[in-house]
Amino acid sequence: MRVDYLKRIGRIIDLFTQNKKMIAFAESCTGGYICHMITNISGSSKVFERGVVCYSNKAKIEMVNVNKQIIEQNGAVSEEVAKQLGQGIRKLSGVDVGIGITGIAGPTGGTPEKPVGLVYIGFSSSEETFVNKHIFHANRLIFKKLVLKEVFTLLEKYIENEKKK
Amino acid sequence: MRVDYLKRIGRIIDLFTQNKKMIAFAESCTGGYICHMITNISGSSKVFERGVVCYSNKAKIEMVNVNKQIIEQNGAVSEEVAKQLGQGIRKLSGVDVGIGITGIAGPTGGTPEKPVGLVYIGFSSSEETFVNKHIFHANRLIFKKLVLKEVFTLLEKYIENEKKK
Repeated sequence: MRVDYLKRIGRIIDLFTQNKKMIAFAESCTGGYICHMITNISGSSKVFERGVVCYSNKAKIEMVNVNKQIIEQNGAVSEEVAKQLGQGIRKLSGVDVGIGITGIAGPTGGTPEKPVGLVYIGFSSSEETFVNKHIFHANRLIFKKLVLKEVFTLLEKYIENEKKK
Repeated sequence: MRVDYLKRIGRIIDLFTQNKKMIAFAESCTGGYICHMITNISGSSKVFERGVVCYSNKAKIEMVNVNKQIIEQNGAVSEEVAKQLGQGIRKLSGVDVGIGITGIAGPTGGTPEKPVGLVYIGFSSSEETFVNKHIFHANRLIFKKLVLKEVFTLLEKYIENEKKK
């Protein structure tokens, strides 16, 4: 499993390197796990520009320019905040792809409307910005791994499209 | 090993929570691993305010206010940059303890003067800022784990002193 993960990350890094594309992440609920896994590969510095682990709302606002009112209106775990995290980190770091993640890793913090396991993943490139919503029923670490797999898929789709250009 | 790590992090988080102290990290060579491990514990949000994975020099300068000239004069992997990372992230995030990490995880990137495995860990509180230097002969992931253990020790020492006050 671990080796498979590393192989997959290695392929993504190779493709981004070949296509001269760079990535940045703004992670809330995954707490740095995405950055950690990417940087397990030597050579990732060619592709990975920066990451922000914006656990507090203050950090989301100050470090990724998330709109304070948007957080107050929608909550930190919301489609709109994920969008702003992805878009914000891309623009701030001047990279090609920004990914923003906000959710509830649990086991506490869930509500009927926003249950434990809920996560919004915001993807932003110069061409498009969108948000995918998932609910993962898993413990804290497995939750992070499931989000990582979704991030892999987003990055792979993006780079496959770029290769065709 | 994993369970021991989680227990130790759990104890640190409990002590910081009880003493109302908060932490922030600026990680370069550890790539988000420290933040990831801290946030594996539910309740870490009471203690962990934010983290920055400042892989590029641009990110170190833009996100943690590291002085550009200091990087040019000393290199990104240096005592002075570790100090500024620790101090910078503490002040920017308004927390009690800031920890900054810069080093060479390898396997490439080493020089005779700055070998693979070299790491500087900058610790900053309102009372003191200092830097510890280590050289770890290990692969990329073990390197991250060895740095994490040093971070644990620094946090434990700090909070034990705070408890005595």
